[in-house]
Amino acid sequence: MHSPASTTITIRPLAGIGEVARGCDLGTMLAAAIEPLGPIAGDILVVTQKIVSKAENRWVSLATIAASARAHQIAAAIHKDPRLVELALRESTAVVRAAPGVLITRHKLGLVMANSGIDASNLGPGGGEQDDRVLLLPADPDRSAAGIAASILARLGLEMAVVISDSFGRPWRHGVVNVANGCAGLPALVDRRGELDRDGRPMQMTQVALADLIASAAGLAMGEADEGIPAALVSGYRLPAGKRPAADLIRPEAEDLFR
Amino acid sequence: MHSPASTTITIRPLAGIGEVARGCDLGTMLAAAIEPLGPIAGDILVVTQKIVSKAENRWVSLATIAASARAHQIAAAIHKDPRLVELALRESTAVVRAAPGVLITRHKLGLVMANSGIDASNLGPGGGEQDDRVLLLPADPDRSAAGIAASILARLGLEMAVVISDSFGRPWRHGVVNVANGCAGLPALVDRRGELDRDGRPMQMTQVALADLIASAAGLAMGEADEGIPAALVSGYRLPAGKRPAADLIRPEAEDLFR
Repeated sequence: MHSPASTTITIRPLAGIGEVARGCDLGTMLAAAIEPLGPIAGDILVVTQKIVSKAENRWVSLATIAASARAHQIAAAIHKDPRLVELALRESTAVVRAAPGVLITRHKLGLVMANSGIDASNLGPGGGEQDDRVLLLPADPDRSAAGIAASILARLGLEMAVVISDSFGRPWRHGVVNVANGCAGLPALVDRRGELDRDGRPMQMTQVALADLIASAAGLAMGEADEGIPAALVSGYRLPAGKRPAADLIRPEAEDLFR
Repeated sequence: MHSPASTTITIRPLAGIGEVARGCDLGTMLAAAIEPLGPIAGDILVVTQKIVSKAENRWVSLATIAASARAHQIAAAIHKDPRLVELALRESTAVVRAAPGVLITRHKLGLVMANSGIDASNLGPGGGEQDDRVLLLPADPDRSAAGIAASILARLGLEMAVVISDSFGRPWRHGVVNVANGCAGLPALVDRRGELDRDGRPMQMTQVALADLIASAAGLAMGEADEGIPAALVSGYRLPAGKRPAADLIRPEAEDLFR
């Protein structure tokens, strides 16, 4: 953004990572997938939230969940599984919107999103007798990203930035886009307050959500988590100095300009 | 997204477009800038809203604006120029939020954004005696994009998709990202309702804001409009079939799930 590339940026899908199971050493799997591409320091590895959650064993069996009275009440109103609603409540600090088919919460991490980010795509259409498990977000996605970066450094000897990407719906606009839930090795938010533009005027746009831009760019190469490629390598972008976690992208409720 | 790239996606900044003045034939200027890159059919040209507005002469001199009583009232409360507030009101259908230093409206195009998208960066710090002009959004960005695509076709003989990109703030998250205000030659929104994922389950994420992803990807190469590169060429992404305008990305107020 603030330091436009003078060269070409490339986005390469990382195929061949394979199924990510509980306890997988995801950093090592990713390092192996990256190595044939000839990565260099400063490349950016983008990974879907879903495989990070799987590697961290963030599965919860709905059979183990006892829904509270409040969860039953909301579930009846919005036609969802009370146990899923219960989990969404446990994962969140507030319900932003509950309507038939829709439950939007503020996740404990500060993310405003559908169903507290719980991935229920493992459930079968009939309620999922075979597999009643759902997948929670990583407990600390910035820490997850730092762990992957550390693995890459250990395996390949390269300092690489890492972004964990998720698909988000948005107010006022149709369709999902990718945003960054976690990152390491780059400034998730680039603050330009006080800088001047090329004509010497104060910048109008003072903060850029760099990690979100990178997640969306990689989204073009990855496709959706359920069917797509779970990681991509972004090369040729000259990262600005500084490191800030994806947590810095969260706008505290009190500062929300749109409400 | 839905058809992940099997190959590398590249994003190349388009330098050397030069200053865009009133009445410039922007399509021809862009075609000249693209040609040395060896473009092919199916490449995607991303252009900042700012140069499109300039070419369409969307300048308004604040000296010509008489502020209404309502504009004066809002301006006093939020510490902004009453003439700028008046223009923002004229460009919009509703005020979403007015607070000191902040005016968020629903633009007539349906976009919820700061100051109805009016670019006041031409104003000097002291109020701009030399140049009191501000720049409005294109009147019909989808039509603008179609016009650029037609120019490219005429000049280079190539069917190219075009996305007009702007920087947007967002609820709940810090920092701006690029989104698509207009587009041509691609499906801005990809609707997957009824499709199954690779395991035969109905897709959870049924709509993807493809044009917004492309705008954000190009944002990495372009930098900000005020200082950056005003266009970029995205290659290697296999566009899905169908054409839908950026207007399809607008979620009608009544359907807003987040409020």
